[in-house]
Amino acid sequence: MLSTATKRIAPPKRLLYGPGPSMVEPAAYEAMSHPVLGIRDPHFLEIVGEIRQGLRELFGTTNRMTLPVPASGSGAMEAVVSNFVRPGSKVAVFAAGAFADRISIMAGRQRATVARLEKPWGEVFSASEAEEFIGRERPDIVAFVQAETSTGAYQSGRAIVPAARAAGALVIADCVTSLGAMPVELDDVGIDAAFSCSQKGLSCPAGLSPISVSQKAFELLEARTEELFTWYLDLRLMAKYFEPPHVYQHTPSPPLFYAMHAALASIEEEGIRNRWARHQRAGDRLVKGLVALGFEPLVRLPENRIWHLTTVKPPVGLNEADLRSRLLEKYSIEIAPGLGQLAGKILRIGTMGPLATDENVDFLLEALRACL
Amino acid sequence: MLSTATKRIAPPKRLLYGPGPSMVEPAAYEAMSHPVLGIRDPHFLEIVGEIRQGLRELFGTTNRMTLPVPASGSGAMEAVVSNFVRPGSKVAVFAAGAFADRISIMAGRQRATVARLEKPWGEVFSASEAEEFIGRERPDIVAFVQAETSTGAYQSGRAIVPAARAAGALVIADCVTSLGAMPVELDDVGIDAAFSCSQKGLSCPAGLSPISVSQKAFELLEARTEELFTWYLDLRLMAKYFEPPHVYQHTPSPPLFYAMHAALASIEEEGIRNRWARHQRAGDRLVKGLVALGFEPLVRLPENRIWHLTTVKPPVGLNEADLRSRLLEKYSIEIAPGLGQLAGKILRIGTMGPLATDENVDFLLEALRACL
Repeated sequence: MLSTATKRIAPPKRLLYGPGPSMVEPAAYEAMSHPVLGIRDPHFLEIVGEIRQGLRELFGTTNRMTLPVPASGSGAMEAVVSNFVRPGSKVAVFAAGAFADRISIMAGRQRATVARLEKPWGEVFSASEAEEFIGRERPDIVAFVQAETSTGAYQSGRAIVPAARAAGALVIADCVTSLGAMPVELDDVGIDAAFSCSQKGLSCPAGLSPISVSQKAFELLEARTEELFTWYLDLRLMAKYFEPPHVYQHTPSPPLFYAMHAALASIEEEGIRNRWARHQRAGDRLVKGLVALGFEPLVRLPENRIWHLTTVKPPVGLNEADLRSRLLEKYSIEIAPGLGQLAGKILRIGTMGPLATDENVDFLLEALRACL
Repeated sequence: MLSTATKRIAPPKRLLYGPGPSMVEPAAYEAMSHPVLGIRDPHFLEIVGEIRQGLRELFGTTNRMTLPVPASGSGAMEAVVSNFVRPGSKVAVFAAGAFADRISIMAGRQRATVARLEKPWGEVFSASEAEEFIGRERPDIVAFVQAETSTGAYQSGRAIVPAARAAGALVIADCVTSLGAMPVELDDVGIDAAFSCSQKGLSCPAGLSPISVSQKAFELLEARTEELFTWYLDLRLMAKYFEPPHVYQHTPSPPLFYAMHAALASIEEEGIRNRWARHQRAGDRLVKGLVALGFEPLVRLPENRIWHLTTVKPPVGLNEADLRSRLLEKYSIEIAPGLGQLAGKILRIGTMGPLATDENVDFLLEALRACL
């Protein structure tokens, strides 16, 4: 017997102050109640086209091959890695967090040789470090994480890309946490292929993850002669659906597209630069408040911090797991622990989308104070 | 400038009489408005557990490793193929449709050797054909399509599985179109690994795709020593999220889970056998009506037809593309053309979920008659 019919679900309304999933834009919830459409319905394709244009703006790119992959953020990571990393490729990874590790593992699974420049988690890389590493390794592909969700460190890529381009390497960037809340600026920075997600800076539910690929990178892909290992995430096949003649590859999920359309509309109404500034103000306010409560930022320099994802070491003697439980029980507030080697050592606090306001930062700080 | 904010979307309410996406259960739309939860929120994990139990019932299995993959149906196909097909594996595919071809391609991309027994599209395979083919090829893996979405042919697997098991091969089945509307019966038939989707027999939106893997198959997977090519669809990693201790692998999409929970509840309320019978009655009625209008069923024997996906050749002289356009324009009805080698030659008409009633079959037949 099924165990579902006896009751309806009643998920509590959490305040998602974690690294994602973040609070969903109210208009995005509404949008999901629109009826689903067939995969080639002209009304659906129009919505898809508008989403792709909106994503180009957020990515800071004119890349035609900007599209949402039918997967979570890690699926988008795999889409980029599995299309551009080939067996025998040499991939240089700037590694100071869990998601750089994930890229390294995925590249290894494509049977590439992976070289890693490692630094303590929470740090970023300088131009001279990048030059030395890339000059030494002469990689085919350089991968870095623009916003490292496991540490809260932001690295635009400006310190890394020039050395990569000088070496003729393709540049891949993890923009999972930056897109929609901080500058990504693919074209200005010179990033060839980037991936993101929907459930952080875009204020959407998870499940539909933007990627963007430069013309140069897409031509390299089209010139690949050996088969990819993946079929589902083969961007050449996927592009044939997203571009005319819209050949069936996978069945997209209309509610997730409707939600993303609504979220992009709301971002446009606010203005992306206003949205960035709002996230920066909220992050600054949160850090100040946390320091006053005895927390210590993991990322030392403010310019290296993700505005909307603050990582802090708790005051000595504070059990971070207990604190999280109290916040959840008393205030229905979710914040997150560290990941991997930072598990138990830091807290990760997100102020994304609707939560990136003075009022919501202060509410969180009050709740934290009450739970200490 | 974004092109989204200037307007809200207004998708028309289509009547989706195609092979999927099918009409979404009204309760599933409602469910998506519930607030999203964190990936390890106990309320979310409870919903996930109930969904997994509900899916076991529909799959006809006690397989612990029954779970929804964060991808479309083809992503679930890739999940199964990429976990069980290894480089150098020999895979025997029963090929009489586009989705058997897709399985063959995916298996090739895993660097397996693929042997195919081909028959004209729309036909099914007999026990003696299966014995001869499997006896000759001695494959490691046997793959077949239980409900071939491109042709409307249903093959339970009972003619194929005994020979596969006698040869010691692992059995993979494509249940994308059968689950939720026809018998799947994994355990009775003896299927080791099966995949499906959400947007056909389950009456959900796309994007979350059930798979089920037997204990024996999962043990084989755990014994694999070489790395998989995929990380995103690695079932060993995914299982660690779905089972305690719920280790983070990907971020699930709560609205899709809520929708699936609601759809499973509605199936339980009706009773799965009642639901099967309803789809069978609707399919029989549709075929009779279509024959009366001069259409000819592609699948000759009624027992080999998918109840809820009827495939017919149009009367001589009828342009099927024009017919589809008229139905869409005049009635907002979507039906589908053939795929691959059957493009332009057949129509594919689905009567799934809410549309599998006498009234809705008659409405479609009336609309068709008016458009001929």
